[in-house]
Order: sequence, then structure tokens, then C-alpha cells
Amino acid sequence: MIKADHQAFLQQIKSDYREILINYFTTDKNLQEKIDKFINAVFCANIPVPQIIEIHMELIDEFSKQLKLEGRSDETLLDYRLTLIDILAHLCELYRRSLPK
Amino acid sequence: MIKADHQAFLQQIKSDYREILINYFTTDKNLQEKIDKFINAVFCANIPVPQIIEIHMELIDEFSKQLKLEGRSDETLLDYRLTLIDILAHLCELYRRSLPK
Repeated sequence: MIKADHQAFLQQIKSDYREILINYFTTDKNLQEKIDKFINAVFCANIPVPQIIEIHMELIDEFSKQLKLEGRSDETLLDYRLTLIDILAHLCELYRRSLPK
Repeated sequence: MIKADHQAFLQQIKSDYREILINYFTTDKNLQEKIDKFINAVFCANIPVPQIIEIHMELIDEFSKQLKLEGRSDETLLDYRLTLIDILAHLCELYRRSLPK
């Protein structure tokens, strides 16, 4: 991928991950599909794991600022650690199964 | 690995992971070494990721029961999600880098 494409791709997966976070504790019927799509995109593009963590941190930071602006507590944002665990566990298992025996 | 060896190995990594959890928020100088050793053992034995999650849940459950017996709150156990994120991120990155180009 050339640099501009790569940046656009990173923006796209950040936007997809934001959707996953926002819908993680809802009854969104398409949540699993969104998660699978995100994990496959990250896997196919061979994105380093620290970059996923960075995207997570940036979004949580952004949500936190928004909640503070609204005068609300950002304590519930800690629950999104479960989302990150879910994503990392599935991504890790995908890489593990893809290793040649 | 034959079944008995595999069970003994799982007990060993559970014991190692317990040590990591207990020491995660301390100033244990050997913590990083313990984490690296654990991740390498899991990687070399090709342990499925859901099994790591299971070990984490079992230990947190055990700690929770112990805290309740002592009449203490188990709320701080939620912080150990950070430990699991740390372990999964490093393990995932190890698998990712091990894939043939």
C-alpha cells in the first residue's frame, strides 16, 4: 500500500472500531459481523498490534473528553476494556491458526 | 504431548499466570521476565487463546471468592483486565510476526 492509501485505510479501521465500541453494549444485531469484518481487515493488512491499542486509546480519550464536556463521569469507559480483550483474543486466535503446522 | 504432560503443562502456565497477576501492580523487578516466559511458553505449546481467557477467568473467580471470604470488595479485580490486554497484545504480536511473509 502506498502511504496515502495506508493512512486512508487506518482512518477506515478507526471508524469501524468506533462503531464497534459504540454498539458493544447494545443489542445491535450486526455487531458480530462488524467485529468479524474489523478483525479480517486488520489481519489482511497485517497491522501491528500496538497500532490497534493506539486506536483504542485514542477513541477512549476522545469519548472521555466528550463525556467531560457534557459534565458526565467517564468511569463507564473502563468497560470498553472488554471490547479490546474480545478483539485481541479473536485476532490472536486468527494469527495462531494461520501459522503453518 | 501426551495427555498427562499436557495437563501438567496447563497447571504450570496457570501457576505462572497467577504469579503475573499477583505481581502486576507491584514493583516486582522480574515481572517483565515472567510475562515474557509465560508468552513464550504459550506460543511454543500453541495453546488456543480461549484457554488463556479461561485461565484468567478461573483465577479472577478464585481471587474474588477469597476477597469475599475476607469481607473485602472485589472491585479492584477489574483492573486485572489490563494484565490480560497486555498478555494478549504481546502474544498476538508474536504470532503476527511469526507468520511467513
